Amino acid sequence: MTKYDVLTIGNAIVDIIARAEDDFLIENKIIKGAMNLIDADRAQFLYDRMGPAIETSGGSASNTAAGVASFGSSAAYFGKVADDQLGEIFRHDIRAQGVAFDTPPLDKTPPTARSMIFVTPDGQRSMNTYLGACVELSPEDVEEDKAANSAIIYFEGYLWDPPRAKNAIRKSAQIAHANAGKVAISLSDPFCVDRYRAEFLELMQSGTVDIVFANEEELKSLYQTSDFDTAVEALRDDTELAAITHGAQGSVIVRGDESYKIEAIEIDDLVDTTGAGDLYAAGFLHGLTRGYDLEKCGNLGSLAAGIIIQQIGPRPQVSMAQAAIDAGLESA
Amino acid sequence: MTKYDVLTIGNAIVDIIARAEDDFLIENKIIKGAMNLIDADRAQFLYDRMGPAIETSGGSASNTAAGVASFGSSAAYFGKVADDQLGEIFRHDIRAQGVAFDTPPLDKTPPTARSMIFVTPDGQRSMNTYLGACVELSPEDVEEDKAANSAIIYFEGYLWDPPRAKNAIRKSAQIAHANAGKVAISLSDPFCVDRYRAEFLELMQSGTVDIVFANEEELKSLYQTSDFDTAVEALRDDTELAAITHGAQGSVIVRGDESYKIEAIEIDDLVDTTGAGDLYAAGFLHGLTRGYDLEKCGNLGSLAAGIIIQQIGPRPQVSMAQAAIDAGLESA
Repeated sequence: MTKYDVLTIGNAIVDIIARAEDDFLIENKIIKGAMNLIDADRAQFLYDRMGPAIETSGGSASNTAAGVASFGSSAAYFGKVADDQLGEIFRHDIRAQGVAFDTPPLDKTPPTARSMIFVTPDGQRSMNTYLGACVELSPEDVEEDKAANSAIIYFEGYLWDPPRAKNAIRKSAQIAHANAGKVAISLSDPFCVDRYRAEFLELMQSGTVDIVFANEEELKSLYQTSDFDTAVEALRDDTELAAITHGAQGSVIVRGDESYKIEAIEIDDLVDTTGAGDLYAAGFLHGLTRGYDLEKCGNLGSLAAGIIIQQIGPRPQVSMAQAAIDAGLESA
Repeated sequence: MTKYDVLTIGNAIVDIIARAEDDFLIENKIIKGAMNLIDADRAQFLYDRMGPAIETSGGSASNTAAGVASFGSSAAYFGKVADDQLGEIFRHDIRAQGVAFDTPPLDKTPPTARSMIFVTPDGQRSMNTYLGACVELSPEDVEEDKAANSAIIYFEGYLWDPPRAKNAIRKSAQIAHANAGKVAISLSDPFCVDRYRAEFLELMQSGTVDIVFANEEELKSLYQTSDFDTAVEALRDDTELAAITHGAQGSVIVRGDESYKIEAIEIDDLVDTTGAGDLYAAGFLHGLTRGYDLEKCGNLGSLAAGIIIQQIGPRPQVSMAQAAIDAGLESA
């Protein structure tokens, strides 16, 4: 059986990306910086108003899997597409990146999920996601051999939106823990945290989840505090290992009594923040499965996040393995 | 009735773009720099071997229409997509750019055309086009009111590949000339010229076409000569107005006894040459319909081509109208 360093589970989405002004977000009631869940009618409404776009495979946890593979670790992915052209694009891209992806597609409807992402002049992305086929992800989609043979299983908090995906996560976590694997969650989005706060806290406090990835806003939402340090201390108590990103200020890693402050990398030009958190997680998880110290894990995360925000779209367009060598973080 | 500055007609294509090494082209027998026509089996074969990609609307004449609209001229387009997800993307993008596009889509099969474009480290693009629904473009798709009310009708030589599109062109040209419009051709690709040399020369010599866009290789192929100047003089005799691009060396414009040498713009970083000729034509045609002198028309072409090769994909990601103002070629 193939061994995977990281198995990720998430909503399988094709991103449709266009630039927009802040006024457009206001006029169309799009919450800036957030993941706005939309239905099919709203998707049509917004697409009719969207400027010319480009398409790229996306989806938070799938971006992380692609990043992990780009660093040279072995990765697998569970997620639901439909048997349509967007599904074909999604399947192609993740496999072409070297990620094992075999979740059977839905037969046509609902169609493959898409997220209309508006990137404002400040580089911030505002997502509008129609979940489509993702609503059908269920425990039957958990490939037990892959789950049992992965060092880390990582999933996105967004999976609490579709109805049965959380059961797939609980099943995967059980398999991981029965096989000495670790389980990681990304809190995904502050509004997502607000929708599922009690459940996310239960996952952490019960030990269903061992590792937590969050950004500052998500963490503050989780603990309903405006004080970052208070939230970090609460998280330290609730989980084994956590990495908290806060944009240009870098990230903080906590494990038991240990704390590490990690710098963000210098960037020339902020183009599009889509995928920043996903790629931070990719670099961090790659480092963790290689057995690097937490500081290096954090620096690999910073590197990947810094690269992805200087391009359009959330999938690596350069080799992260090469970037890690060039940055002196790994050797050739 | 709406008046259009430019109506373009071409193969309606979604581009699937990935980076590749030169070795990949050799291994897979892809002619570098060319448009390689492929069938459905070959499309699957290449897609299975292609790296992670991004998708963007493409198609030579549709890129030109998008460019014309981005400059602020009014544009329309005829081209055939299928009623599928890629067709929806194509329709969205061209309309969102402000181009009138109403060609009825095919009902599902063959699917919307796609071109797999491999961009090598030198920025050169090598296209592999599956024509799909484009093969059904026919004279019935000529909207006579749009053809009659366009100052210039521009079409791509690639339209000689599908079986009945040339009849749509001849019909459109007749309508244009009956309504004081001009007709322009892009020679598209040296191999395309080789396939249809006699017919392209007949179009020019009979006056079916008034304006010719070509690059150096296409022109040499047309006149079967290795001498650029010889080819330019032959072209001068065969058509009313011509613009010949030769990459970093800029372009040459000839009309009767007049000749103009136009510089290419300075670029910082050659990313992807896809769309360079299409956008040169867009800038040139925009200038022509505004009544600018030929030198300014050429400089607008150079500007648009220079911008498009510094980004991935052939559709403008910035406002060409603003770029023309910033370059001092037009006033605000």
